[in-house]
Amino acid sequence: MSDLRSLIRTIPDYPKPGIMFRDVTTLMGNAQGFKAAVEGMAAPYANEKIDAVAGIEARGFILGGAVADRLSCGFIPIRKKGKLPWKTIGQQYALEYGVDIIEIHEDAITPGQRILIVDDLIATGGTAEAAAKLISRTGGLVAGASFLVDLPELGGLDLLRSHGVRTHTLIAFEGH
Amino acid sequence: MSDLRSLIRTIPDYPKPGIMFRDVTTLMGNAQGFKAAVEGMAAPYANEKIDAVAGIEARGFILGGAVADRLSCGFIPIRKKGKLPWKTIGQQYALEYGVDIIEIHEDAITPGQRILIVDDLIATGGTAEAAAKLISRTGGLVAGASFLVDLPELGGLDLLRSHGVRTHTLIAFEGH
Repeated sequence: MSDLRSLIRTIPDYPKPGIMFRDVTTLMGNAQGFKAAVEGMAAPYANEKIDAVAGIEARGFILGGAVADRLSCGFIPIRKKGKLPWKTIGQQYALEYGVDIIEIHEDAITPGQRILIVDDLIATGGTAEAAAKLISRTGGLVAGASFLVDLPELGGLDLLRSHGVRTHTLIAFEGH
Repeated sequence: MSDLRSLIRTIPDYPKPGIMFRDVTTLMGNAQGFKAAVEGMAAPYANEKIDAVAGIEARGFILGGAVADRLSCGFIPIRKKGKLPWKTIGQQYALEYGVDIIEIHEDAITPGQRILIVDDLIATGGTAEAAAKLISRTGGLVAGASFLVDLPELGGLDLLRSHGVRTHTLIAFEGH
């Protein structure tokens, strides 16, 4: 795929006026696009030990499941509050207005396991930062974070790097 | 994997008394288990034309993304109402008390495309039946439906087969 970016649909003023929403479902629905995305997100980690991918609900599950299969490792879901059936630990993160919480099963990670965070898009990085904290709190090591799309103006990659997290992205969109 | 079933955690009385909840996250977190699940779900369709996997939110995204990558096809999300950013069509289905709605992007499928439904578990089959209806309404052909876990007492596979949908499952649990 020479231009993954062209497979992403931009929806102006969604979910509210002034936001250019990057809709990755059009890329995922394209067989060549989906394959290139999964390959590109997994490739930087193909030659190192990754014990599990931690995918962030919900679009991070789609790419994360495929990346985990490519890397022959397990998959761990990081979900919105109240969605996981077993004992969880939660981590709060800031939204534009207010806060939200994501959770992980308290026994999802064996201490020392190397975990790769996967999501479709990184904006401010608040969710991914919270995911990294959950992984650390359960004894895991954050081996990296892989995203299909970056919105550089929002600084999410810088935030993760400030915590020492290695990051990879395939596509950047200026403007948000 | 000789026994995928043993990797699934059963949580008694969740989400309410009398229900034995089959928690597939423990299987997914196990590298061998996750690989065997994805392989087993994709295998029946490896030698035929599948244009896209339609994964049902949210656990169906994890397995569906990986199965789509295995089959070198696209991925289409079927989501809870209000979660998709573009124009959608919706389909109502019955819950134990009341109804719910799932949606698909109205342009997700090119008429005539062969679509494989993927979810982690089939119980009464109401959600999968609604997914099949959405695929048909957007012009797609339901090539089959693949689930990791079946709860046979609830009759979901029979319901799908009554619509002519071919089904595959890897694990069955009696009792629910």
